[in-house]
Amino acid sequence: MIRTPYLLFLGDAPDALAAKVAQGIKDWRPEFAVGQLRLPGCQADLGLTDMTLEEAYAAGAKTLVIGVANRGGVISDGWMSVLVRALELGFDLASGLHTLLRDQHPLVEASARAGRALHDVRLPEQPYPIANGVRRSGKRCLAVGTDCSVGKMYTALAMEAEMRKRAMKATFRATGQTGILITGNGVPLDAVVADFMAGSIEVLTPDNDPDHWDLIEGQGSLFHVSYSGVTMALIHGGQPDALILCHEPTRPHMRGLPDYKLPSLEALRDTALPLAKVANADCEVVGISINTAALGEEEALACLQEAEARMGLPAVDPYRQGAGRLVDALSALS
Amino acid sequence: MIRTPYLLFLGDAPDALAAKVAQGIKDWRPEFAVGQLRLPGCQADLGLTDMTLEEAYAAGAKTLVIGVANRGGVISDGWMSVLVRALELGFDLASGLHTLLRDQHPLVEASARAGRALHDVRLPEQPYPIANGVRRSGKRCLAVGTDCSVGKMYTALAMEAEMRKRAMKATFRATGQTGILITGNGVPLDAVVADFMAGSIEVLTPDNDPDHWDLIEGQGSLFHVSYSGVTMALIHGGQPDALILCHEPTRPHMRGLPDYKLPSLEALRDTALPLAKVANADCEVVGISINTAALGEEEALACLQEAEARMGLPAVDPYRQGAGRLVDALSALS
Repeated sequence: MIRTPYLLFLGDAPDALAAKVAQGIKDWRPEFAVGQLRLPGCQADLGLTDMTLEEAYAAGAKTLVIGVANRGGVISDGWMSVLVRALELGFDLASGLHTLLRDQHPLVEASARAGRALHDVRLPEQPYPIANGVRRSGKRCLAVGTDCSVGKMYTALAMEAEMRKRAMKATFRATGQTGILITGNGVPLDAVVADFMAGSIEVLTPDNDPDHWDLIEGQGSLFHVSYSGVTMALIHGGQPDALILCHEPTRPHMRGLPDYKLPSLEALRDTALPLAKVANADCEVVGISINTAALGEEEALACLQEAEARMGLPAVDPYRQGAGRLVDALSALS
Repeated sequence: MIRTPYLLFLGDAPDALAAKVAQGIKDWRPEFAVGQLRLPGCQADLGLTDMTLEEAYAAGAKTLVIGVANRGGVISDGWMSVLVRALELGFDLASGLHTLLRDQHPLVEASARAGRALHDVRLPEQPYPIANGVRRSGKRCLAVGTDCSVGKMYTALAMEAEMRKRAMKATFRATGQTGILITGNGVPLDAVVADFMAGSIEVLTPDNDPDHWDLIEGQGSLFHVSYSGVTMALIHGGQPDALILCHEPTRPHMRGLPDYKLPSLEALRDTALPLAKVANADCEVVGISINTAALGEEEALACLQEAEARMGLPAVDPYRQGAGRLVDALSALS
């Protein structure tokens, strides 16, 4: 559990893309973003108030979140002095960098002296049980993809935002580092030991009100041979009531696997649904989310209409159109 | 890689079942079993020569394998003095106990002094890559089960033994602690970090001669919600050419999951095969292995005949009948 709200550290980001974690926090949890801290040369700007550590602390920020990738995998001296100073002032630190905070001697020392926490969200912070498969109260929705990185996190966040707007009970449940930094908690599933994967998702999505929906962030794909085991554990640990099929229509092959073609939406449906029914016999596929960023507006709409007609399910690009129709489909279930 | 041959430590085993790891080594790798070491009160007997540490070392034993479960999860003083003495004499130690050797101060000290290895086979001994999905040469067979603990390891070991008898090129590939102790190497898959599961199986079953078969030890079940992710990673990391369906016909529910019924053999086939074809389009289901230990001879044969007729595949209990017909089915493939 990362303490909120945050001061977002953009460092010396070479461009806006390098600060996409900070952008995600600002987009999806603006109430967590007290301000931004930029070093000389920073080319990213979230449009938040620029603050010093002292100003942000006075404004109530509890954690300095590293919202930017570090160049070359090393934490520069320029970054380090800011991070140490933040700990001394009373901030916790949170990071999704490959380079772990806990492996940085100055940060370990300073955090111990100040009694502050170092959150490396790539690694689990707690032990998890083996899954017990017991049915839980409340509802769960899981995004599954034809491939990795097709918009599963975005889809779940967009659905949560729409549901909150409608005063529905909804909680995005993060299973990856960006999602964890955005929401302040979650399970870094790809770093969990095999035996405890499904159990970690049971812990992440506990009993809840009958009309509460967990929007579980998907990971990997049943068709991606590097990560399919992670996806399988999400399906069985999450015991979803509803699946959303996620797809990117222009990808020539599975991400990182040049010899593997993407499956069709039909194949994804026919593979994921029977497996989901093992843990929850009532599970249904309720909608399709297509990332049409690579298409022009007309092409995108044609692609969505074609998928909708073919699959008999609402098909939307939540970035272009919002997630309203996906939420309608969830509402129709409950 | 555990150095062979072994002296098998049976300790003060209260009965034969407590020494089943040692029994497995003696059954499947008799050439690794130089002798047995029993403490006063030991109720297990593998029929091997009883040896002192000194005798076994002189006879060429390289590793003392703890082939027995420890009572109450603690390593008693009686055990500890033997284990320390073994290290001092020049033995490595290997153990699949929950209680780790590396957490025992006297063993860590003695092994450091003697320059000997402590193998806790429950934990990975090396880092693994993320799977790349590239097709490998050689052939692979994977046992998949309707449930956990239905005889997948036994089936693969029995097939390997039969293939070696026929002078076929075959290697059992261990993915769990007992199999690792039996063969001296393998991947403790349930302890591998999620992202590297499939990659660890790619490493375990590398390129090989075109007519060489890896017999990959199965784990879990696609229908067991606690462990299905592990099974999925085996299917995609192993990219099997052949699947054997494993089943135990008298089980009232999935192991440890009272609310979950076992799937039919048809459901297992129809779920596992399309997933396996993602990594290897040529994969086929070639046979069925049924653990009929709980049935009388007549009942067992009737059960096997029924499954064989229904599924159109050879169905055997390798313990009763040997694995010959399963190996015939593999041979017919290649």
